[in-house]
Amino acid sequence: MQPVPARAGDPLDTIETPALCVDLDAFERNLDRMADATQGMRLRPHAKSHKCPDIARAQIARGAVGVCCQKTDEAAAFVAAGVRDVLVTNEVVAPRKIARLAALARDATIGVLVDSTDVVPVLSEAARAIGVTLDVYIEIDVGAHRCGVAPGAPAAGLARAVVAAPGLRFRGLQAYQGAAQHLRTPEERHAAIATAAEHARATRAAIVAAGIACDIVTGAGTGTYRLEQSSGAYDELQPGSYVFMDVDYGRNTLAADDVRFDQSLFVLSAVMSAPAPERVVVDAGLKAFSFDAGLPIVHGWPGLEYRKATDEHGILAVAGGASPPRLGEHVWLVPGHCDPTVNLYDWIVAFRGDTVEAVWPITARGALG
Amino acid sequence: MQPVPARAGDPLDTIETPALCVDLDAFERNLDRMADATQGMRLRPHAKSHKCPDIARAQIARGAVGVCCQKTDEAAAFVAAGVRDVLVTNEVVAPRKIARLAALARDATIGVLVDSTDVVPVLSEAARAIGVTLDVYIEIDVGAHRCGVAPGAPAAGLARAVVAAPGLRFRGLQAYQGAAQHLRTPEERHAAIATAAEHARATRAAIVAAGIACDIVTGAGTGTYRLEQSSGAYDELQPGSYVFMDVDYGRNTLAADDVRFDQSLFVLSAVMSAPAPERVVVDAGLKAFSFDAGLPIVHGWPGLEYRKATDEHGILAVAGGASPPRLGEHVWLVPGHCDPTVNLYDWIVAFRGDTVEAVWPITARGALG
Repeated sequence: MQPVPARAGDPLDTIETPALCVDLDAFERNLDRMADATQGMRLRPHAKSHKCPDIARAQIARGAVGVCCQKTDEAAAFVAAGVRDVLVTNEVVAPRKIARLAALARDATIGVLVDSTDVVPVLSEAARAIGVTLDVYIEIDVGAHRCGVAPGAPAAGLARAVVAAPGLRFRGLQAYQGAAQHLRTPEERHAAIATAAEHARATRAAIVAAGIACDIVTGAGTGTYRLEQSSGAYDELQPGSYVFMDVDYGRNTLAADDVRFDQSLFVLSAVMSAPAPERVVVDAGLKAFSFDAGLPIVHGWPGLEYRKATDEHGILAVAGGASPPRLGEHVWLVPGHCDPTVNLYDWIVAFRGDTVEAVWPITARGALG
Repeated sequence: MQPVPARAGDPLDTIETPALCVDLDAFERNLDRMADATQGMRLRPHAKSHKCPDIARAQIARGAVGVCCQKTDEAAAFVAAGVRDVLVTNEVVAPRKIARLAALARDATIGVLVDSTDVVPVLSEAARAIGVTLDVYIEIDVGAHRCGVAPGAPAAGLARAVVAAPGLRFRGLQAYQGAAQHLRTPEERHAAIATAAEHARATRAAIVAAGIACDIVTGAGTGTYRLEQSSGAYDELQPGSYVFMDVDYGRNTLAADDVRFDQSLFVLSAVMSAPAPERVVVDAGLKAFSFDAGLPIVHGWPGLEYRKATDEHGILAVAGGASPPRLGEHVWLVPGHCDPTVNLYDWIVAFRGDTVEAVWPITARGALG
């Protein structure tokens, strides 16, 4: 674990760079707006975005039923931190991982996805062996073509296997359309979620027709949660990135009635070299950002553009006439993709105005297992 | 820090996924080949590639004079692990970082780059304050247009300032052409390094003409080190990636007399979903690889291709007629870019044949400061 880049009470200009920072005013507005927007639904925010128990607690304090995680070890970090309801929105297959997952159910409600009958007896045996119950959701492929069984009859068949397995409690369906989150126009997103909702509805009907209760259809992300909500097919929403936002989400065109979330996440960098009038170099490169969704952008410095990264360097172009930052000066950058960028840091510096208010550990950083 | 994914003596098929793994036979061949190829030169491998003291020790045991690091906290990790000669191949500007860097010089020979006279008094004062000497190298821009002063007279002027500063020992020039490492043809790399070497030679001459000794010209990477070596302009070589290799280095066309390094670094993944004959999904996605240089490739499984990643999923296409891996089965993947991929993991599983031989901590993982 790396040293903390700041301490509560520090002025912003003393934060050690590069540092992952969150603007608490924007962050809290985002949490409040999502809580308001999802009134009447179960909100289970995705903790893969932040990996930070302090943030999970802030979400739960505003009414979230618990969190989603993506990996067993991520779930373990949140349960250890006191979160009492975690859904792993992923298939867990390896018997040792399943055993770890089942052990978490001693202290918390733990859900997990299945999309294959092969795993059902392994989950069942792991739960029975230690006398716990695991909640199981069947993942259906609602159009993203990643994991998931086909909607309708195949899902109903799998539900039957889960219901018959001791130690497992069939809870419902995971119907997440990941590929829809970054479709750029409201029309494209609307069409994708209309299809997803239709699959979810038909699958629930098939399961109920088989005499099995299907209580919870869960899914949705920051890009589409309003559509899942208004579809009537979903009971629970899983947005994650809304707490932070990023350059890539900023590229989505919003519909008139979409809630706007503010950019709260930044990487604070500093100029380490100012070798030419048209170029400065900051200390945040390929190890300070995930570049899968493109380059970071410079925040609040007109005429300055992040052009290229190497491992530990960010090369910024200075437009003609712009006044560049001096050697050592701070430059605020907005990550291209928040989730995998957060995963590069051990700490989030939470600030309000000009002052650091807290430094939160990113407890589940690197939790791949 | 995450749990270890394996223990010494474990068979490969019990490693928990995803795991960063190194094939020790290939790794040791790479270390031996580089040691052989650079006989007569100072070899100072770049530790930013591996961030792992166990690997630094293996390099030093084969004759390396020490290591390069890219950040102050990275250097701190290697000094704490017993490495006694570290060159930070980067400008360090923030006074608090400079104070930390100077403190390392109590236990090790510490070098650092400068490309601005502004930093010279800060380095000098930090060294004097605690009674140590810092080695200083002037970084010149030899064509990569990242950091560095212009070759020739500007560098000589900066050398004068360093020589005049108490607590600092002027050692020579950093003349690294980072942009040349991945030029695809030998001819392009040859032309880029010929220019770099000419700048290095002219700058050394300008400094010597000013009455200042310029003992060490250092630079080079895995893509070009033979060219710096044969140029006669360099005294010390800094390759890093050769220990591991990656998909991107694999795209370089080698010259007839280039040494071939073997792929030793892998990410071991496992199939978490096999939802369709043409698709399997593994548990290694955007948080298991850096995608800045493109997608990982599948190792040793004809007909299987890594097509797309989301945060924790890798989607693999199965060619018609190919036999796909089963649910839970391991799939070996070669990272697109080794350095920032290694930075995502806490451990490297070192194996030989079918058996884990050691699990090394990636001590400087996340050392951005």
